[in-house]
Amino acid sequence: MSEITHPDSTPGLDSIRIVMVETSLAANIGAAARAMKTMGLAQLVVVNPKEPLLSEAALVRASGAQDVLENAHQAPDLDAALVDCQLVLGTSARNRALPWPMLTPREVPARISELASGASVAIVFGRERSGLTNDELARCHYHVHIPANPDYSSLNIASAVQVMAYELRMAALAGAASPAETPERALARAEDLEGYFEHLQSVLVDIDFADPNNLRQLMIKLRRFYMRAQPEPTELNILRGIVSQTQKSIRR
Amino acid sequence: MSEITHPDSTPGLDSIRIVMVETSLAANIGAAARAMKTMGLAQLVVVNPKEPLLSEAALVRASGAQDVLENAHQAPDLDAALVDCQLVLGTSARNRALPWPMLTPREVPARISELASGASVAIVFGRERSGLTNDELARCHYHVHIPANPDYSSLNIASAVQVMAYELRMAALAGAASPAETPERALARAEDLEGYFEHLQSVLVDIDFADPNNLRQLMIKLRRFYMRAQPEPTELNILRGIVSQTQKSIRR
Repeated sequence: MSEITHPDSTPGLDSIRIVMVETSLAANIGAAARAMKTMGLAQLVVVNPKEPLLSEAALVRASGAQDVLENAHQAPDLDAALVDCQLVLGTSARNRALPWPMLTPREVPARISELASGASVAIVFGRERSGLTNDELARCHYHVHIPANPDYSSLNIASAVQVMAYELRMAALAGAASPAETPERALARAEDLEGYFEHLQSVLVDIDFADPNNLRQLMIKLRRFYMRAQPEPTELNILRGIVSQTQKSIRR
Repeated sequence: MSEITHPDSTPGLDSIRIVMVETSLAANIGAAARAMKTMGLAQLVVVNPKEPLLSEAALVRASGAQDVLENAHQAPDLDAALVDCQLVLGTSARNRALPWPMLTPREVPARISELASGASVAIVFGRERSGLTNDELARCHYHVHIPANPDYSSLNIASAVQVMAYELRMAALAGAASPAETPERALARAEDLEGYFEHLQSVLVDIDFADPNNLRQLMIKLRRFYMRAQPEPTELNILRGIVSQTQKSIRR
């Protein structure tokens, strides 16, 4: 991820990446860029947007935040968008089939402040109509839900970015003291977690624990468990080592 | 002001009127209507809008909140829009020539809650480019300022409505119940966890991952990880099943 100029020097905000997955309307990306910049966020990553990013509509809606749009990183898939991130938060409607640790936007800054300083954080926003898929949501440590009107909960995506960014800014301005008792922790990177899950999956097939044609539900359950635990790099090394050694043992 | 149906029954929100003064783009009014409805607000009053309220652009941006747009009251001037209101709040940039009691959006609900129940409240949003005039701001009890990036503080007007409405909703929900709590979880029993750790330990020796004479530090690290994840009974069953199946595989 290339460094870009930050429009604001409020501490903490520069480690936060907004990721927009398969957004249909570039105008919404432009509006999100504006929402970000007004709150001092600058890192925008778009995954497979459905319209050219620098369309007229997008630039108009970005208004004075065209620099955020122009500096946006285009990632070919979610994996690429999450490289180097230690904490991944996915926005989601409530009551999904996928029960996952759930935060309101207001609760997000405290979770971020528990990380070692300088750790990268991604907040992922899904498609306008369908949001994030369950597989994408399973890549996240937490789901974030804006407590909307149950009779009409459909925030515009840029409005959702605005609310999230507003909460991040409010916390940054408040000094966002981390809960004193929780020590800061370095977390494993997203790509290393993915490597572990792939390796684990192949071993589960090797030991006949899992049917190779019917892995999805099992892997989602395991992801839910491991993501909740938020492995540290050394812990992930141990887990990965166990999987490797299991593979060697059964092949002997 | 005619009574209209409220999309949400969260207490307090139905006494709050959003007033938009001389908005240039009807699309922004439509987007504001959507922002309102997602947060359970329904009373929209527009003062001398510059485009027809029910234009195609406005209806598209209102999305599922077209009812809020259709039920909007059109007032000829700000006086008419504020009839019957006991508390008037005007959104404003900071550092105006007009020094006035200033609130952040987060501080607004407390001021509203000091009113007798049923009292009407207006929150007034100005023109896209120039905001509210000093005369209009002088009609307000308080000014409300969203603490934006000083280098680029220009929120889209519907985004400003979204942030304000979000704070109102968060406060209304806090008065009732905690909004997005993680679903209640049943956790695995201590004795079942112990059984798992014993089993895991024996398999780690079987696969030559661990030295049987030097297990303590490794098991403490693994306990720390698994305890932090707080496994549910079904998750523990999966983890235990993997360990069992590993054992069977290497003994074949």
